[in-house]
Amino acid sequence: MIKITLPDGTVKEYSKGSTPMDIAKSISEGLARNVISAKFNDTIVETVTPLNEDGSLTLYTWNDDAGKKAFWHSSSHIVAQALEELFPGAKLTIGPAIENGFYYDVDFGEHSVSEKDFPAIEKRALEIARGKHDFKMRPVSKAEALEKYKSQGNEFKVELIENLEDGTITFCDHDTFTDLCRGGHIPNTGIVKAIKILSVAGAYWRGDENNKQLTRVYGISFPKQKDLTAYLNLLEEAKQRDHRKLGKELELFTFSQKVGQGLPLWLPKGAALRERLEAFLKKAQKKAGYEMVITPHIGQKELYVTSGHYAKYGEDSFQPIRTPKEDEEFLLKPMNCPHHCEIYNARPFSYRELPKRYAEFGTVYRYEQSGELHGLTRVRGFTQDDAHIFCTPEQLDEEFKKVIDLSLYVLNTLGFDNYKAQVSVRDLDNPEKYIGSVENWEKAENAIINAAKEKGLDYVIESGEAAFYGPKLDFMVKDALGRNWQLGTIQVDYNLPERFDLTYKGSDNELHRPVMIHRAPFGSMERFIALLLEHTGGNFPLWLIPEQAIILPVSEKHEKYAEKVLKSLENNEIRALIDNRNETVGKKIREAEMSKTPFMLIVGESEEENNTIAIRKHGGDDLGSITVQDFVDLVTKEINSTLKSF
Amino acid sequence: MIKITLPDGTVKEYSKGSTPMDIAKSISEGLARNVISAKFNDTIVETVTPLNEDGSLTLYTWNDDAGKKAFWHSSSHIVAQALEELFPGAKLTIGPAIENGFYYDVDFGEHSVSEKDFPAIEKRALEIARGKHDFKMRPVSKAEALEKYKSQGNEFKVELIENLEDGTITFCDHDTFTDLCRGGHIPNTGIVKAIKILSVAGAYWRGDENNKQLTRVYGISFPKQKDLTAYLNLLEEAKQRDHRKLGKELELFTFSQKVGQGLPLWLPKGAALRERLEAFLKKAQKKAGYEMVITPHIGQKELYVTSGHYAKYGEDSFQPIRTPKEDEEFLLKPMNCPHHCEIYNARPFSYRELPKRYAEFGTVYRYEQSGELHGLTRVRGFTQDDAHIFCTPEQLDEEFKKVIDLSLYVLNTLGFDNYKAQVSVRDLDNPEKYIGSVENWEKAENAIINAAKEKGLDYVIESGEAAFYGPKLDFMVKDALGRNWQLGTIQVDYNLPERFDLTYKGSDNELHRPVMIHRAPFGSMERFIALLLEHTGGNFPLWLIPEQAIILPVSEKHEKYAEKVLKSLENNEIRALIDNRNETVGKKIREAEMSKTPFMLIVGESEEENNTIAIRKHGGDDLGSITVQDFVDLVTKEINSTLKSF
Repeated sequence: MIKITLPDGTVKEYSKGSTPMDIAKSISEGLARNVISAKFNDTIVETVTPLNEDGSLTLYTWNDDAGKKAFWHSSSHIVAQALEELFPGAKLTIGPAIENGFYYDVDFGEHSVSEKDFPAIEKRALEIARGKHDFKMRPVSKAEALEKYKSQGNEFKVELIENLEDGTITFCDHDTFTDLCRGGHIPNTGIVKAIKILSVAGAYWRGDENNKQLTRVYGISFPKQKDLTAYLNLLEEAKQRDHRKLGKELELFTFSQKVGQGLPLWLPKGAALRERLEAFLKKAQKKAGYEMVITPHIGQKELYVTSGHYAKYGEDSFQPIRTPKEDEEFLLKPMNCPHHCEIYNARPFSYRELPKRYAEFGTVYRYEQSGELHGLTRVRGFTQDDAHIFCTPEQLDEEFKKVIDLSLYVLNTLGFDNYKAQVSVRDLDNPEKYIGSVENWEKAENAIINAAKEKGLDYVIESGEAAFYGPKLDFMVKDALGRNWQLGTIQVDYNLPERFDLTYKGSDNELHRPVMIHRAPFGSMERFIALLLEHTGGNFPLWLIPEQAIILPVSEKHEKYAEKVLKSLENNEIRALIDNRNETVGKKIREAEMSKTPFMLIVGESEEENNTIAIRKHGGDDLGSITVQDFVDLVTKEINSTLKSF
Repeated sequence: MIKITLPDGTVKEYSKGSTPMDIAKSISEGLARNVISAKFNDTIVETVTPLNEDGSLTLYTWNDDAGKKAFWHSSSHIVAQALEELFPGAKLTIGPAIENGFYYDVDFGEHSVSEKDFPAIEKRALEIARGKHDFKMRPVSKAEALEKYKSQGNEFKVELIENLEDGTITFCDHDTFTDLCRGGHIPNTGIVKAIKILSVAGAYWRGDENNKQLTRVYGISFPKQKDLTAYLNLLEEAKQRDHRKLGKELELFTFSQKVGQGLPLWLPKGAALRERLEAFLKKAQKKAGYEMVITPHIGQKELYVTSGHYAKYGEDSFQPIRTPKEDEEFLLKPMNCPHHCEIYNARPFSYRELPKRYAEFGTVYRYEQSGELHGLTRVRGFTQDDAHIFCTPEQLDEEFKKVIDLSLYVLNTLGFDNYKAQVSVRDLDNPEKYIGSVENWEKAENAIINAAKEKGLDYVIESGEAAFYGPKLDFMVKDALGRNWQLGTIQVDYNLPERFDLTYKGSDNELHRPVMIHRAPFGSMERFIALLLEHTGGNFPLWLIPEQAIILPVSEKHEKYAEKVLKSLENNEIRALIDNRNETVGKKIREAEMSKTPFMLIVGESEEENNTIAIRKHGGDDLGSITVQDFVDLVTKEINSTLKSF
């Protein structure tokens, strides 16, 4: 008998050689039907692997990330079989599961595979899947493994095997197909009910551009056809919501080849939206006791040598800026913190004056390779909603809670209500990796965990994930498309106060080191606005959206009245414009829908007579004809319902 | 007889050999008493120079810049005589008039001259002046001139004379003193009634650090003792109002050696003040139809090659920023205009959509040598309240007027009510110096001059002062200390639209070039705030000042009430704080006076009982005890009286 410990801590006895599937069956038939993968003592195993010793077992279904991984990894075997059959002579290389689906890198030889081949591949793969073939692992000798692939002339697999140790090599068989494989499969191909080939792309063998170029075939698969349909809809929705597409359509930002890649130019509507977002945070920050400062976008190299950023960013970043006559060298600032430390250092502080909370919408510059740039989410210049809190170690607890409050206020107001927190703490086995006293670390880690608890956050603690200079809390936010984003880091820092020799006079009249907290609820204005665009599909909250209303005169003779309406909306701080083009109202409404304008105000004969406006909401709701004042009240009410004060 | 044309255009006949003084006497005795210098046909002459041909004559008094120049130049002769007498062996070099006074560079040999010698120098110089010695010019041969200074062993004057042509050399005598001199004196020393030696400093012969170091003696003189007293008071006041001193005292900004010279760090109070100033202009600009944009602080070198800024700033500025892997080079932006041109270029425009007015508080970086840096007025990084207007040539007239309106609104609201305009136009004799068609230049110059006329500006036209790319208008503003500053340039530009190939579709369906206007009413936030600090002595307008009120509890037991007062002030958007230090009210009042806080709100027994506050204005006015609401009304009224909307 062997003792198996289950995730809930219960220990059960099974006969030696029981498989994870046997154990699942012993728990419930329902579980057994859904189990597709398992982990035994930190190693992924097959559901049919016999277990011969005591250990911990985790069973995975499709709902677990590890379950999906096994599912997609197994699917790549199925697709590989289809590719081998459809493209004779194709040489398989590697085919892992990825975040969404899987790929297989293949040397197709004389064949060239393109979108038109996808239906045939999907069809054959699905036929194979329906065969309900078991995935069966078997050990092979190195010689046997090499023999198989040498006879096929597959130099890639040969190279892979040559780097493996004899006695550790396994093949996986299903149907007529065999692949070199370490394991981690679902029980059989029949579980895979839907397969979609998504795209093909070029990829170098082992990612090295000196090697042969292969074809990477991307695919995804699901246990139900309707899951695939839902996923494809999501893909289409994500394409429609791509912030680069929406940013162009809504005239928010642009890029210029002359100014340079990754350096966004904010167009009037985008700049105004960004300013509203900044004003929203500024107002909350003011209430929370922050003070705004302004610092330059460059600093002497020495500043970043002091802060340690030069050692970290120096070689891979924008290079130092030389000057014509003198020995000075400047750097574009990659971070605002060194500047804020110098502001703190501009005068002495007593403990009674702390915490000092310096905030700045600080634009920083970091060099990214051009291939890594992506719209507003990966840029070379971006504006952080940065702040640095300088406090005593005793104040850390309270400050951390206040920062969480502010971060949650920001996320909730902007409609991100699905988030978890990740608390990164020390690796207790490697204390030498961290600076600052053990006492301070304990204080800070406890402060963060207590704050997370007290604020009712859903959080996980990740040991060893802390930076060398302090523990932190990250918010992981799920957007409307179900994608996860890291938004809003709160980082404790014992390092910079040391490096900049920051001090305050304590109640004991001695000098002490303050603790520093870095925080940015948005992260960067660029990235946040990109996420918000994709999260809302451009349907920003009413208080934030560029135009809140568009006035559509039915004909030219109502333009005067339209002007009058516009004027009174402007007097009530409602952002509106008039579409007085010589087009039909129908066309104007369609275009206003495209531009996501929340309210269309149609003015014609009857409205002018009755001094009203006919309101149509974005999406089609007809609110009838009301007075301008009623409309103002409506807008105000809707704004107040989403934009609560901090 | 000779014909003399006077500045008012009248022509009078005088006998040949008449002097400017003779002519002054012929006009009026009063004028003759005040005339101290003259210009004949573009050449400065003595008042006693005989005029032997027809020509134009301008007579100068102390009230003219040219009159002051002659006065101070003559005073430097008097002081030179005093120095020669008091420090035997001293070698005189050159001694010109400057903007305020004069200096003389002297090689004092074994003597060292310092502040303690000033009274003796002043005393002797004044004795000489009182001798009423005439300044008398006489021509000398080069040999004679060299002989005089060689015999004195004065190698400096010898070097000067060696560079002069024989037949053009003159000496000027007064009393026992003779100096090498081209002329331009007042009639006699007696007109100088007050002389002050201001300072001494080191100066290299001919400004070359490889040459001998001389002592520069700075002085100033006046026709009346009370003018000197007023000037010295002004100097003292300027010292008190120095923005570097006030900026530190009021905690507005600081500098850090580590961040770098000339790179201001805005402290919380300064950053907030700057934001209020920006908000003020933003509001007016919004009304005036400007749209805000945001652009990065760097751009590819190519951008500035296109704009021409690289050719202009390249070598003397911050050097290009290289990147680790690619061939790109970036520059810190010295100007915002290229970025705004690229924003204009992001989409096509029709003439119906113009003018486009893009505004940005854009931070630019220009390298200045460290010796030239000065507080906030000469920095390496500064934020322009920049905007670029893209319009059709036909719109230029209207746009220029609008920009003048906005500029005047800004100047008047900020209390600069003493200004003149300078219109810089082409040099008609050198048309090849300018780009753009003659027709467009005429249109633009007329637009500016008409706008200046129509807006009732006091303006002068300066021919040949226009930039090669277009005419402009500058405001010359006199501050509270009577000093002149250039504030707010409005510049027409035909060059950048050409270089960036900017176009719009005209009513003829053809592409045309827009005209660009650059304008910045503040100039830069840094320089403007420095001027405003010195203009107001830190007593900013109530709407702008960091703290509008300070609450002074008479004792600890009134702190609660003070908090209550503060809360209700904050609810009414009044910026206030409480001084609850354990100090006497007297001391608190004195310090509140120092910090320029406009209102001190004293709260004690009687105020708490009656729910009032006792108001004391900065400067001492006692407004008695009133309710918080009355105080709020008072503040609102005062703000509304200075901060009118545009």
